[in-house]
Amino acid sequence: MQELKDRIRKEGKVLPGNIIKVDGFLNHRVDTRLMGNIADEFAKFFDVSQITMVLTAEASGIALATICAEKYKVPMVFAKKAKSDNIEGGLYQSEIYSYTYKKKVTQILSKEWMTAGDRVLIVDDFMANGEAVRGLCDLVDQAGAELVGIGIAVEKGFQGGGDRLRSQGFPYHALAVIEQADENGIVFREDQ
Amino acid sequence: MQELKDRIRKEGKVLPGNIIKVDGFLNHRVDTRLMGNIADEFAKFFDVSQITMVLTAEASGIALATICAEKYKVPMVFAKKAKSDNIEGGLYQSEIYSYTYKKKVTQILSKEWMTAGDRVLIVDDFMANGEAVRGLCDLVDQAGAELVGIGIAVEKGFQGGGDRLRSQGFPYHALAVIEQADENGIVFREDQ
Repeated sequence: MQELKDRIRKEGKVLPGNIIKVDGFLNHRVDTRLMGNIADEFAKFFDVSQITMVLTAEASGIALATICAEKYKVPMVFAKKAKSDNIEGGLYQSEIYSYTYKKKVTQILSKEWMTAGDRVLIVDDFMANGEAVRGLCDLVDQAGAELVGIGIAVEKGFQGGGDRLRSQGFPYHALAVIEQADENGIVFREDQ
Repeated sequence: MQELKDRIRKEGKVLPGNIIKVDGFLNHRVDTRLMGNIADEFAKFFDVSQITMVLTAEASGIALATICAEKYKVPMVFAKKAKSDNIEGGLYQSEIYSYTYKKKVTQILSKEWMTAGDRVLIVDDFMANGEAVRGLCDLVDQAGAELVGIGIAVEKGFQGGGDRLRSQGFPYHALAVIEQADENGIVFREDQ
């Protein structure tokens, strides 16, 4: 998606350790007009007319998922991070490793809000190692719901999460795949 | 706001300990159409034509704040919870007590995304003890920005956070103030 790549190139910052900061428009300050254009772009790759919900993970995916859900006229549901070991009943749970927090995190989702009849589009702002999305797929699986697609705004292609999903045959699409990010700048993978 | 009160009465659940669950439309599964109506309602109480940003706190306020920002055509910014004691520079910081986590939490906001020229509308889905909003006001203050208003969807009136802001003269408005919630049901404070 050219507009997104242009914004990353213009406003993104590369920090030591291959950290790419796009917090001026994606995940700290959010440009909702751009989120709307991203939602329209996802709709070219996935049949959003047949989905029953948009699913994302707390916290930074919520803004993008909200705009997507509004556009597609379905509810937005976000999996929460469990706040303690004392998790109540009635929940789907998935264990993921958080590279941000450097520890295991449990994602939880009330069984009330996803059931076997649901057709789910997973949306997230960022894909690195893919742990958050792996956990979301697991939640969809536990519910016996149908995974219609996984739409990601920015993928760090060199960290392998996206390629793993592609090789496993998931209906996956990322709008900007960063192949390399260092002091020489940002290189995108060509669109496929 | 009658539509919001009706939804709370119809779909809200009161759990022991005065816990009010509205996670079917507000903060786990989100009804974006309702969020749009809430955004329109806030616009009756605050001059949104003059604001430069909508500010909220991670995580559950993000959905509502995103729809508000989209409607008012300004960026949405969310204060993050600090992930470690090792906080980098260039940040405003506020210390709040989280009743959910039962510990102190540091809210952080990059100085890049709020400056003295900003006119800020704070938005959140829920007000209980008011710690999150107190922290957000503190961030606005640190930036030397102007606080235009504080818009809350659901206030637990009996927990004092909203009344404290009112008594201190803050430009504060909540769309549904719950005065009492127990096995007998939910009682709202009359609109003022």
